Amino acid sequence: MTYNTQKPVILSDQVKSTLHSLEPLTRKVLLTLSQPSPQDNRGDIDRIRQLLERSYGSVRIPLSLMPKIPQVCRSSNWKFTAVLSETCQGWTLIDIESGDTTQEHFGLAIDIGTTTVVVYLIDLTDGKVLKYAADYNDQIAMGEDILTRIRYASSPDGLASLQEAVLATLNRLIKRLYPLPSEASMISAAAIGANTTMIHLLLGLDPASICRAPYIPVVNNPGLITAAEIGLDISPLAPVYCLPSIGSFLGGDVIGGILVSGMHQESDISLFVDIGTNGEIVLGNKDWLVACAGAAGPALEGGVTTYGMRAEQGAVDHVSINQKTGWVDYSTIGNMPALGICGSGLVDTLAGLFLSGIIDRSARFQNGQQEFVVVPAHETASGEDIVVSQVDIKNFMATKGAVNAATDLLMENVGCDWREISHFYAAGAFGQYLPIESAVTIGLYPDLPRTAIVRLGNSSGEAARQVLLSRTKRLEAEEIARKVTYFELNANAAFMDKFVSSKFLPHTDLDRYPSVRERLQNRI
Amino acid sequence: MTYNTQKPVILSDQVKSTLHSLEPLTRKVLLTLSQPSPQDNRGDIDRIRQLLERSYGSVRIPLSLMPKIPQVCRSSNWKFTAVLSETCQGWTLIDIESGDTTQEHFGLAIDIGTTTVVVYLIDLTDGKVLKYAADYNDQIAMGEDILTRIRYASSPDGLASLQEAVLATLNRLIKRLYPLPSEASMISAAAIGANTTMIHLLLGLDPASICRAPYIPVVNNPGLITAAEIGLDISPLAPVYCLPSIGSFLGGDVIGGILVSGMHQESDISLFVDIGTNGEIVLGNKDWLVACAGAAGPALEGGVTTYGMRAEQGAVDHVSINQKTGWVDYSTIGNMPALGICGSGLVDTLAGLFLSGIIDRSARFQNGQQEFVVVPAHETASGEDIVVSQVDIKNFMATKGAVNAATDLLMENVGCDWREISHFYAAGAFGQYLPIESAVTIGLYPDLPRTAIVRLGNSSGEAARQVLLSRTKRLEAEEIARKVTYFELNANAAFMDKFVSSKFLPHTDLDRYPSVRERLQNRI
Repeated sequence: MTYNTQKPVILSDQVKSTLHSLEPLTRKVLLTLSQPSPQDNRGDIDRIRQLLERSYGSVRIPLSLMPKIPQVCRSSNWKFTAVLSETCQGWTLIDIESGDTTQEHFGLAIDIGTTTVVVYLIDLTDGKVLKYAADYNDQIAMGEDILTRIRYASSPDGLASLQEAVLATLNRLIKRLYPLPSEASMISAAAIGANTTMIHLLLGLDPASICRAPYIPVVNNPGLITAAEIGLDISPLAPVYCLPSIGSFLGGDVIGGILVSGMHQESDISLFVDIGTNGEIVLGNKDWLVACAGAAGPALEGGVTTYGMRAEQGAVDHVSINQKTGWVDYSTIGNMPALGICGSGLVDTLAGLFLSGIIDRSARFQNGQQEFVVVPAHETASGEDIVVSQVDIKNFMATKGAVNAATDLLMENVGCDWREISHFYAAGAFGQYLPIESAVTIGLYPDLPRTAIVRLGNSSGEAARQVLLSRTKRLEAEEIARKVTYFELNANAAFMDKFVSSKFLPHTDLDRYPSVRERLQNRI
Repeated sequence: MTYNTQKPVILSDQVKSTLHSLEPLTRKVLLTLSQPSPQDNRGDIDRIRQLLERSYGSVRIPLSLMPKIPQVCRSSNWKFTAVLSETCQGWTLIDIESGDTTQEHFGLAIDIGTTTVVVYLIDLTDGKVLKYAADYNDQIAMGEDILTRIRYASSPDGLASLQEAVLATLNRLIKRLYPLPSEASMISAAAIGANTTMIHLLLGLDPASICRAPYIPVVNNPGLITAAEIGLDISPLAPVYCLPSIGSFLGGDVIGGILVSGMHQESDISLFVDIGTNGEIVLGNKDWLVACAGAAGPALEGGVTTYGMRAEQGAVDHVSINQKTGWVDYSTIGNMPALGICGSGLVDTLAGLFLSGIIDRSARFQNGQQEFVVVPAHETASGEDIVVSQVDIKNFMATKGAVNAATDLLMENVGCDWREISHFYAAGAFGQYLPIESAVTIGLYPDLPRTAIVRLGNSSGEAARQVLLSRTKRLEAEEIARKVTYFELNANAAFMDKFVSSKFLPHTDLDRYPSVRERLQNRI
């Protein structure tokens, strides 16, 4: 399962965290200067700086902008709009535009996934998403997963090729956002949510140390960089803010997820889970946050089953199995003849098989059965049965078991009981497309009151939108990054014990799944 | 007369202004970090930034430096030297060097003249000049004077060619400073004294408005720029500080002159004069400063007399005329056969002619004479007499008259009498090479007690050295720039009156030249 590139939901309406006021990365100010005269021998640039400094304190004007300034001043008859960027060291003038363009102010919220890249065009005057564009990350040609790409980066020109690939993807998507609602203005800011490796590759930083003990990245918080420095096709001096990461395995996308969930401001304890190729789990509240991460395997990316596929046209995305007859009802994306099964279809299938008693609590087929036909041959595109086999289920259970084991260990580690969890935040594709009831039935989601299960959608993209728009959110993100304690799973022997014992449906401890128990009882 | 490129005196020992403590544009700090460990998942760059921020507040680390950081950290076993640049918005990390290089710290003080460029290598640990290199400005090929270059800048690719020319000059000179005393370090900072047009051309800014009413430059104070932004071949992120200018006609070289003189801190009134192709005159004290500027003509550059030449090999640089016999004693630069006369030789010749009564107070030859042979044909390189003619003298008197008229007008304007002038500061070549007694005799210098006549040498270069080394001096220079009132000569009808009436030796008002009057009386 990947993001459906046609429908990148940016913000679930369940999200509590809201923006109280807009303090975007860049501001626009209308300036009206008097004509130059012999009575005032200040240069054009000195006059503008001194005028801005009355309101903004020290203002830096980069050399690359200077040649443009006298031209715009004169062609606009000394009425023009200054675009200012706020840095941790004061303000920088990044552009000037003829006339009053203060109401035409645009920025980008960017989510760089290992697989999919989404770029949202944001109206910085009201925070709204005007357009978006999404596509696969061109880096896929150099490796599907992060480890392969890190290895590729150390080959000759590998790092440069990876950087070029993601920039090509981004610039292709940015081109699709044009023309802007106003042609007088340029896109003047960007914020990015991405994992630590994606940020390294975007910035041209060697990611080798990320996957080599002691697993220390080159940088967690790169600070503001300019679009021109990395080659992003927006206003050259536009500030680019990367959501800070916490280490090699907890990236800005996860910090972003926490930020969007608001769990870092709640008194009650929440659990945040994002499962993609990698899985990240965060537990905590306003006082403490603890997190772990690890490879989750491609279970939810459609990669572990024989007929697994991404959430594309022809993928079986919803399945229901009649508990009495075992008959299957299914739908496919785009109502096309079935090609395979994507993550949500697989979760539905497993839940249906379990509730129908076709597989037992240890996820094994009963009565010597070896596979289950989800779509019969005459309805598929290939003319072959689309099935889920015992091996497919075993592979999927490894992922689920890892998630359960990691969550349990994290909770045990901080001495937290399941009854203390007030909210479960599901991020990314894991939170956006999985059928809730089926996900609870097979133990991928916890069995909480359904109102406590919050699906954050593309929280990495939404976090990028929030930090693009709000200084407060940027400070919050940095505060989260400081606060999270990383819990190392790989070095933990208890993890393997838990992992081995957690391959049950919905969970080793059925007491934690009362609604599933009830359904199982009703079935009998 | 131009700077003798063989001997650019940087600082006269008469200069009062001294540096009390070193606060150079860049600082070096030795850092020793612990090895990275799983207990600390901060990135290399985050750890360095946080360590520096304990002492320096907010520290910016530019993206272009980031790839180098993990390499140097590891190759130096986590003991390295951070190079920091101070900006008006906080500190920036501009380089890191393996091991302890804190005692190997270099900067450049640069004087970009319209004609000559001088680059001084400064030891930033003690402020000393280690080496220097000087050469003609390659821009001369595109025009000898400022106006021609401004016109050239508006031709196709003109501005880019002028910028390339001065950079080629600078980078050629920088190359001559290598190898550095230590090969482990790069030159990490530069400060520049230059007129407003030279700064515009260096920065690639269109100088057209400088010579077009209302004569407003693009910028007076460009702030810190980086070496890479303009293409200076030193450490790419090295800060480059340009002494601020006050307008199109009063550049950072003049601000630098005032700074080096110290007149802006004295209670008594001083007069500062710098005469090259352009002339600048500043009058004032710690409470006020008023200045005027104008084209002085090439009189002192050796360009108005038939046999005028720059102060190069073979130039007659000293002349004395026996008052009784009219016989001439002279010397040439390098003791070569005479090729022509440079500025100091011409000033000596005129003083000698005047004191001998060969020319009268209105600078006219007596008894129908039309020229004076300084070097007879058999002693010259060409085999022709080297002479000073009535036309040569008339041309020279125009420059001298303009300087006198401008000075008088400036003083009248602020109601200042000659007796109030405590010091006369002579800057540049005008202050460095002219023979004092001869310059007073013909009224180019005022007739003050000789201890009150202070020759500043290359005050533009010395000012660059001071602001390179001292934050206090940078603030002082900016304070001077704010304080100076520009007095417009060109729009002033009184100037022409004064100019017409001031072509006398030593001055229209002989009372102001008591020592010259005495010499004339002794002669009779």
